[in-house]
Amino acid sequence: MRARREIDVPALVEKARAGSPRALGRLITLVENADPALREVMATLAPLTGSAHIIGLTGSPGVGKSTSTSMLVTGLRRRGLRVGVLAVDPSSPFSGGALLGDRIRLSDHVLDDGVYIRSMASRGHLGGLAWATPQALRVMEAAGCDVILVETVGVGQSEVEVAGLADTTIVLLAPGMGDGVQAAKAGILEVGDIFVVNKADRDGADATAREIRHMISLGDRTEPGLWRPPVIKTIADQNQGGDEVIEAIDKHWVWMSERGELTRRRRVRATREVEAIALAQLRSRMGGLSGDGVLAEAVGEVLEGRLDPYAAADRVVEVLT
Amino acid sequence: MRARREIDVPALVEKARAGSPRALGRLITLVENADPALREVMATLAPLTGSAHIIGLTGSPGVGKSTSTSMLVTGLRRRGLRVGVLAVDPSSPFSGGALLGDRIRLSDHVLDDGVYIRSMASRGHLGGLAWATPQALRVMEAAGCDVILVETVGVGQSEVEVAGLADTTIVLLAPGMGDGVQAAKAGILEVGDIFVVNKADRDGADATAREIRHMISLGDRTEPGLWRPPVIKTIADQNQGGDEVIEAIDKHWVWMSERGELTRRRRVRATREVEAIALAQLRSRMGGLSGDGVLAEAVGEVLEGRLDPYAAADRVVEVLT
Repeated sequence: MRARREIDVPALVEKARAGSPRALGRLITLVENADPALREVMATLAPLTGSAHIIGLTGSPGVGKSTSTSMLVTGLRRRGLRVGVLAVDPSSPFSGGALLGDRIRLSDHVLDDGVYIRSMASRGHLGGLAWATPQALRVMEAAGCDVILVETVGVGQSEVEVAGLADTTIVLLAPGMGDGVQAAKAGILEVGDIFVVNKADRDGADATAREIRHMISLGDRTEPGLWRPPVIKTIADQNQGGDEVIEAIDKHWVWMSERGELTRRRRVRATREVEAIALAQLRSRMGGLSGDGVLAEAVGEVLEGRLDPYAAADRVVEVLT
Repeated sequence: MRARREIDVPALVEKARAGSPRALGRLITLVENADPALREVMATLAPLTGSAHIIGLTGSPGVGKSTSTSMLVTGLRRRGLRVGVLAVDPSSPFSGGALLGDRIRLSDHVLDDGVYIRSMASRGHLGGLAWATPQALRVMEAAGCDVILVETVGVGQSEVEVAGLADTTIVLLAPGMGDGVQAAKAGILEVGDIFVVNKADRDGADATAREIRHMISLGDRTEPGLWRPPVIKTIADQNQGGDEVIEAIDKHWVWMSERGELTRRRRVRATREVEAIALAQLRSRMGGLSGDGVLAEAVGEVLEGRLDPYAAADRVVEVLT
């Protein structure tokens, strides 16, 4: 058994902040593995967080997420910003190297020490994205990333989840794939701050852009003072349109800052994170199925018909608090 | 505003037990609406629950769930049992009449006062199936149903959820639809206690049955003493095979009772139910985003970089307990 003390957390954090991708990688691995040292890591990082602009990037498979990410990284690097990329695959239990096949387009940036790229699996984590990803973001933030792109494949609820993690959410579409109706169904119209129609050299790009604009105009976002999500056409694999997207990201940042929306979003995010950790602690104190905890005892009475589930829950809460 | 006292819970429960489908329906509506009277309802019902055999029935759209349910109801009624049918649609926010189109096959039973049929939407309920369905089952159980069939469309995780609610889970397949690989992917191989290949007069029924048997044989269920799920062929719309399914249900019940598995499953179920209610109470005590609760205060310090999420959660738990 490896002793916990082997991990020198302050030294690791120091190295990560000095720009060591290896140290940064080790810290994120601690997050992924829910290592016992994680508490110390988070305590050390706390004063160093809160400065990065976190940008969520989501879209169905095939819309060109990797090329778009690469294009944005190029643009952000040109401005001299340190960039982190966290690719979260909500369907894969694998991590680290598993997504590297998809990451081939990002290989332009692997020799650039101003860019840190990491894949992360969220399946299998308690609470999925909600649990591990915010902590990985804290690590990258504390290590000095100015901007972090969180890339997620849009499957099921993950678009909505990624929106909960980001300051700004970009929804990627491609002609003929992302119909407006599909977008509305998946709830992405509500969560997108910026819509990008990639592969704009293909037939139907204008129609897709028009449809999304139309759907947005039907929503309640047209009220004065609200953010009206722009719809931008790009051809990521020819590096076209990236500057417009980055300008939109900047504008959204300014709008959020002026309106107090940035603080509001971050408060919601931190609240969910702390709440989830606190509830997990309380849950473990209840004792679950095993042994003679207060929960098991109350459940015994429910099974005998002496308590109803509400009264049983009351008793659990009473004993606990 | 309607006063809460308008609902005479003991009288309603009494009427439901005497066989009034109207009273039973009103009680389930209280569950669906999370009515304030629900606590009183559950307290009144507690001593009357625990006697019904709860059977989950799941399968993809088109496998013949309604006809199969109807066939089982016919067989169970022939034995003189009171039968409840709860059709849960996890994808629909509608309820009550919404599923009646699908329920047309059950119309053979609408004039039989030994059968109570109810549709229920689970979407929109806090915790979905996990929250409202167990309470609706308690109501039907207390009202005197000997057997309750819980029918759910197999989409996403609902098969696994329905298995968590039932004593016995039946997985319905149809030739050419339910490939073994699909079944394995969806996790239904693990949760099915009985597999039924319906539409057995169609081509490929034997192949589907063989495939499922093969998949089961690859699992760890072949160990001595474990329940080996039978694979039964039926033609529900010709009322063929129902008796074999009911015999398998009986055998599974006997096996579970002898092995202590029935108690174990019910304990798991009740534990989840009580835990969910208790956690919801604790969550609301934390105060959430609004106002000056302990959570909001701790989150404020996280945002300022003075606390990390774990330390913030510790404080929340400490204040609460």
